[in-house]
Amino acid sequence: MIYLDNAATTVHKPPSVAEAVFRAINTMGNSSRGTHESSLEAAGTVFETRCKLSRLFGCPGPEKVAFTANATEALNMAISGLLRPGDHVITTDCEHNSVLRPLYRLEDEGIISLSFVPADREGVLDYDAFYSLIRPETRAIVCTHASNLTGNVTDISVPARAAAEHGLCFILDASQTAGAMPVRMEEQGIDILCFTGHKGLMGPQGTGGICLRRDAALRPLKVGGSGVQSYNRSQPAEMPTHLEAGTLNAHGIAGLSAALDFLEETGIEAVQFREQALMRRFYEGVRDIPGVTVYGDFSRPHAGIVALNIRNYDSGEVSDVLSVEYDIATRPGAHCAPRMHRALGTEGQGAVRFSFSWFNTEREIDTAIEAVEEIAAR
Amino acid sequence: MIYLDNAATTVHKPPSVAEAVFRAINTMGNSSRGTHESSLEAAGTVFETRCKLSRLFGCPGPEKVAFTANATEALNMAISGLLRPGDHVITTDCEHNSVLRPLYRLEDEGIISLSFVPADREGVLDYDAFYSLIRPETRAIVCTHASNLTGNVTDISVPARAAAEHGLCFILDASQTAGAMPVRMEEQGIDILCFTGHKGLMGPQGTGGICLRRDAALRPLKVGGSGVQSYNRSQPAEMPTHLEAGTLNAHGIAGLSAALDFLEETGIEAVQFREQALMRRFYEGVRDIPGVTVYGDFSRPHAGIVALNIRNYDSGEVSDVLSVEYDIATRPGAHCAPRMHRALGTEGQGAVRFSFSWFNTEREIDTAIEAVEEIAAR
Repeated sequence: MIYLDNAATTVHKPPSVAEAVFRAINTMGNSSRGTHESSLEAAGTVFETRCKLSRLFGCPGPEKVAFTANATEALNMAISGLLRPGDHVITTDCEHNSVLRPLYRLEDEGIISLSFVPADREGVLDYDAFYSLIRPETRAIVCTHASNLTGNVTDISVPARAAAEHGLCFILDASQTAGAMPVRMEEQGIDILCFTGHKGLMGPQGTGGICLRRDAALRPLKVGGSGVQSYNRSQPAEMPTHLEAGTLNAHGIAGLSAALDFLEETGIEAVQFREQALMRRFYEGVRDIPGVTVYGDFSRPHAGIVALNIRNYDSGEVSDVLSVEYDIATRPGAHCAPRMHRALGTEGQGAVRFSFSWFNTEREIDTAIEAVEEIAAR
Repeated sequence: MIYLDNAATTVHKPPSVAEAVFRAINTMGNSSRGTHESSLEAAGTVFETRCKLSRLFGCPGPEKVAFTANATEALNMAISGLLRPGDHVITTDCEHNSVLRPLYRLEDEGIISLSFVPADREGVLDYDAFYSLIRPETRAIVCTHASNLTGNVTDISVPARAAAEHGLCFILDASQTAGAMPVRMEEQGIDILCFTGHKGLMGPQGTGGICLRRDAALRPLKVGGSGVQSYNRSQPAEMPTHLEAGTLNAHGIAGLSAALDFLEETGIEAVQFREQALMRRFYEGVRDIPGVTVYGDFSRPHAGIVALNIRNYDSGEVSDVLSVEYDIATRPGAHCAPRMHRALGTEGQGAVRFSFSWFNTEREIDTAIEAVEEIAAR
């Protein structure tokens, strides 16, 4: 199979990832629960992984990194945990439902009000709106670092500066960029970073996290066992325990740790360079094929994603043909990005998304281009 | 190492568990996201695992089983998702902080009121109180199936009957019993079952779930990507998607699936019989040692747990000696069970908890008994 659905999850992981999880399952105790060898092994791995993530993301310290099950949980934590009645929030048309639905819910419950930075037909944001939409009651800007549909990278210097100048909290959804391009909280002015472990970071599913630059007073999404301060009626106020109730997925975190080692050795810049080259090769191979429409803006920074349609063919059918006849895995449909599809005018047809990873080859890209060519010629 | 901390997490898993996770990490796509082979493989495994859990727990159907990261998340989902302003809830002194803290939080925020079924010095509940505490505004009874400290099993027929007779929702925390003794939702009148995958079920960390007997209208803890109904502003109302936003931990679920196969082949009754025998052997070996105080009630059903203290020795120090000098892993301290310790009168000292699994041997038990004997003789 030629796997080009890396924006959904990376299937090709460094071999050390599965090996680390395998070992962890057979030896690890419960992290921060007890002081015997296997419990300490788990706690040590969890702490080391916090350190690696903190370094990777330019976070003020490992204790500011809390683990979650995925980016969706981190985003719910940030959004539901930060916002208070009367708050106004600015977000964008490029968001995934993991940002939209937590915000819509608070809006529908009459708790917050919401404004959208609009995107044009190429999915490019109207950056001035990050400023013009600010009101006295604006509390936060939440946006994605790259669209999971078009691959357009957000110029986050704009929302970061707007947030800093107006004392807002800047929450970044790095689901599509963590591991695939530099993300630096301090340098880029990101107050809360939400990430997943199983995409660009190449770790196992069931991992992800939230990083805080300052002590944001987040109401925890979940409370419960913490292994410390057990006589306290409340979840401990100290990070990371504040946001980590219950047994951590230390088995998955062991795999994430191995993936982070791979990324550290390889270098994020090298990964980015390779994914960009594969994405460009594909883009240049398909953009002029008669009947093919490619979405997004390729004149500015772009993640390893190319979304397209062939004539007026249903995107699900094209993706099925690619899978069944060519053994190429892509993702059709709505991609949990309803406003983005509306902006692109692809609400009915959806789009076929090709997304690339470090482990893809030029040969795979060329095969995919040929497949698109053949389908377009039918 | 002699691992006797199975109430925290089971370290000895069936070998098939780590093997299944290893395979899954290297082959699985994102469950319910796309229709290519690797995505379908993930979706198939997730669905099969729902079926197995539904069978195991006597749940009305696989779609009523939603996966969570652990039991704490499931309990937060049940408690925060069900209760409304003005509701009254009955719970017990035997609870873990994963039940207590979500309830305390709602109480402290003035949303609910709370009553406790008291436990005596043996940790035995005053069962009449499940009835006498009911008020017109009582909405739910939440309790554990077995204390994670004493191992006392709750006679859940009492709260289940009280709930059924008064139209209340009965929420069961099966963290200490799922996989280790029969749990049957329909037969035992459990409305919402919360379980973890990494203890008695012998699966990986990062797995667990919530099962609904009827269509309880739970407000989801998290909302976001669902892979279906992407243009809907809200999380889909249908189970299990209603409670499952974001990418599932299909890698961990693959391991849980293998663990469930092992349990199905072995038989829950056989597991229970063996753990009971080990627990009894240990209990009978230590109860008469001079200076040893054993907590809990051993005249009624009891999980594979024995908590004790030696003289007035600090439980943490005893556990450390067991670990360092005897290579025996136990769990000292408060066990996230503050009210249980208060009821037992062990708030200051804590207790040393020994907890057993299918994979422990009689020889290990005897070594642990000898160690307790030697420490008590110092």
